[in-house]
Amino acid sequence: MKNGTRNLIVASAVIAASLTPTQARGQTIANQYREAADRLIDAALADSAAYERLSLLVDTFGPRLSGSSNLESALDWILAEMERDGLENVRGEPVMVPRWVRGNESVELLTPRRRMLPMTGLGGSIGTPPQGITAEVLVVDSWEELEARADEARGKIVLFDPDWVNYGVTGAYRRQGAIAAARAGAVASLIRSVTPYSQQTPHTGSMSYADTVPPIPHAALTVEDARMLHRMQDRGERVFVRLKMEAQTLPDAPSRNAIAEIRGSELPNEVVVLGGHIDSWDVGQGAMDDGGGSVAAWEAVRLMQRLGMRPRRTVRVVLWTNEENGLRGANAYRDRHADELAHHVLAIESDGGVFKPSGFGFSGSDAAYAIVSEVGSLLDRIEAGTINRGGGGADIGPIMREGVPGMGLQVDGTRYFWYHHTDADTIDKLDPEEMARCVAAMAVMAYVVADLPEALPR
Amino acid sequence: MKNGTRNLIVASAVIAASLTPTQARGQTIANQYREAADRLIDAALADSAAYERLSLLVDTFGPRLSGSSNLESALDWILAEMERDGLENVRGEPVMVPRWVRGNESVELLTPRRRMLPMTGLGGSIGTPPQGITAEVLVVDSWEELEARADEARGKIVLFDPDWVNYGVTGAYRRQGAIAAARAGAVASLIRSVTPYSQQTPHTGSMSYADTVPPIPHAALTVEDARMLHRMQDRGERVFVRLKMEAQTLPDAPSRNAIAEIRGSELPNEVVVLGGHIDSWDVGQGAMDDGGGSVAAWEAVRLMQRLGMRPRRTVRVVLWTNEENGLRGANAYRDRHADELAHHVLAIESDGGVFKPSGFGFSGSDAAYAIVSEVGSLLDRIEAGTINRGGGGADIGPIMREGVPGMGLQVDGTRYFWYHHTDADTIDKLDPEEMARCVAAMAVMAYVVADLPEALPR
Repeated sequence: MKNGTRNLIVASAVIAASLTPTQARGQTIANQYREAADRLIDAALADSAAYERLSLLVDTFGPRLSGSSNLESALDWILAEMERDGLENVRGEPVMVPRWVRGNESVELLTPRRRMLPMTGLGGSIGTPPQGITAEVLVVDSWEELEARADEARGKIVLFDPDWVNYGVTGAYRRQGAIAAARAGAVASLIRSVTPYSQQTPHTGSMSYADTVPPIPHAALTVEDARMLHRMQDRGERVFVRLKMEAQTLPDAPSRNAIAEIRGSELPNEVVVLGGHIDSWDVGQGAMDDGGGSVAAWEAVRLMQRLGMRPRRTVRVVLWTNEENGLRGANAYRDRHADELAHHVLAIESDGGVFKPSGFGFSGSDAAYAIVSEVGSLLDRIEAGTINRGGGGADIGPIMREGVPGMGLQVDGTRYFWYHHTDADTIDKLDPEEMARCVAAMAVMAYVVADLPEALPR
Repeated sequence: MKNGTRNLIVASAVIAASLTPTQARGQTIANQYREAADRLIDAALADSAAYERLSLLVDTFGPRLSGSSNLESALDWILAEMERDGLENVRGEPVMVPRWVRGNESVELLTPRRRMLPMTGLGGSIGTPPQGITAEVLVVDSWEELEARADEARGKIVLFDPDWVNYGVTGAYRRQGAIAAARAGAVASLIRSVTPYSQQTPHTGSMSYADTVPPIPHAALTVEDARMLHRMQDRGERVFVRLKMEAQTLPDAPSRNAIAEIRGSELPNEVVVLGGHIDSWDVGQGAMDDGGGSVAAWEAVRLMQRLGMRPRRTVRVVLWTNEENGLRGANAYRDRHADELAHHVLAIESDGGVFKPSGFGFSGSDAAYAIVSEVGSLLDRIEAGTINRGGGGADIGPIMREGVPGMGLQVDGTRYFWYHHTDADTIDKLDPEEMARCVAAMAVMAYVVADLPEALPR
């Protein structure tokens, strides 16, 4: 914190000068770092190394749910590869993570016509009895409709079928739906998958229970089927389904945050941390969410190593574990590195898919924003230089709350939620050239901030 | 044929006059029929009746494979509804159709990692032995690569993984792949699903065997998995899968072409026929392919009936059966109505999805093209007035080959092949307003051509 405070004063002095901050520092940073930035960008764009590595990772290990052997095998391989890359201080920092296992699961529509409905249990849900839960469905389109029809919900399966608004608003039905349905006396709850677009694609994701109401099984149908059951109800038809889920939560299991570094040449105890989360849901390949962010950050650091570019401060890549259903990796990093956090000058996360990058969103002081905006100008040649106010990521959230300036890679998110938490989150949804640009953006931002004469002011 | 020849001479005489055909007839037809066309268009756009009826049809009966009770129940309902609509000569004309049943089916990836791969057997395929077929996979990207590597294919499962070009070119691997693979000694064949876009979406469809090589099971993987197995092979990994299919072809089953009419006021034996196919594959809802075309054509005729618009000639809606895997309905219609075909002045099909219509593609004489282009001008107000050269449909193909001028509704096909023959072919992919425009376009074209003073020249 001391350093941050001091640098804030220095930065303020600069801002007070007659040049605008962009002019004053932009030219300084641009002049000083353009060659280094161009080397990193050129190297990132020269091949598809990041994409190929991600492809090998996700094809070989598949999805990587916390507590799974897929995840731990992937981590073993990643740590060995990081060593082979010649990175420093490679290690897996132990974390105990939740272990939710899906088992077999199904929803069968019984009336008005029989059909197996594609579905996915939501992460953390309890299971059903072995014979399943057979009940009538009450479809509601909102919290308000459930409230208004609460006395119809008792003994039924509530299906939330809200139209897509955004991930925050619509995702609330996934996160909180089981609580509201149980409060109304429902025996299970279903949701329309949280997405603006579907090809009969169920989307999983995290969910919550409350101590005040009994836990009930909670699962997602596809957009198509949620809307179909809604239409059937609107026509006055009675809809019955049988829900079967073997889901259960086993004792916590060991996992790791995978970490590697390039130690700083002058100020090795000051750190720029960058990364993504290596765990995923147990569907698809977890290529977009967030194998891509993990490998892009890793590749950014590998490029510095390969080009012999050792900045003044330490650059540390972290592939956090258990973002999806616990955030245990992020919290463990905060706790284990508590003494270092005052010297974390910047944390960068990529968790929005490694699609075409436009820049970063930044959360920190005005003085720091001015500086990172100037660093961003070095990325204008790949159209990734826009630094917006506000940004970060789930994995860097805990250390941001301890005062570390945070930054999230911003990309074209047009189709992100089409694939999010589904079997369609596979490597082919990503583009090698776009991913290379993400690598370049993260490499330049991390390198320059790690090498600046003064630490980024807090 | 006699009428057609006579009228061709009349039309030629008009073309020879000083006005261009568009000017001469366009103004005549536009003047004469604008009010009628506007009545039909206004009625079609006034509500979502077609969409609601399609929605009820597909939600209630689901997909409608030839030989299934779904299809026959749907036909019972359709014929009863046509009677309730007050249409004339409502009947189901009997047709025997193939009965292919899918049964349970699966593909399990065994090495290099275990995973169940989403898949769909292709229509008409034989099954596997109960224990399945376990074999190494040879991935090829083209007919040429299979030919070049034919001696590697013996005893293996050939996977065709061609990049999407168009339905004709890429679909050939679905239609002919089992023949080529068997010729090379393969024990089964797989294809990348025939689509430019996938969300782990397997696409079914028809396929062929040849007398010269043994039949082998033939199924489609998703784009994602075909590409993954291809990458694995490219990395030097050996890929083994277990294919299980219970598919079998049972004896032919009875079905029907559903037919209804508005009898012509002056020339009831001259007919404009319009329709779509009511059968579908056994996935999704068959809403786009081709419940939508069927219901749009039906609604077009119902609108005329409701508005009391009885044209000079008979307008006949036909919902053909068994387009997907046999074309038995189309052939039966041709045979049963052979004596009438000389007096079929026009056949119109919608089988490209009832998306936003742009007009029609027309196959017939130049003189007739000039006339239908002029009728098209009545649809300019809904941007559906473009009449292109060349067009028709699978179900009207047999009668077009007997000389009947044919016409296919043309629509925005951007996403057609995303949903084609998949579980994602559901009512929500269609838009009520766009479907209403399709209804309007078919209604105006059918009504005006049926009412013109002279029959459309052949």
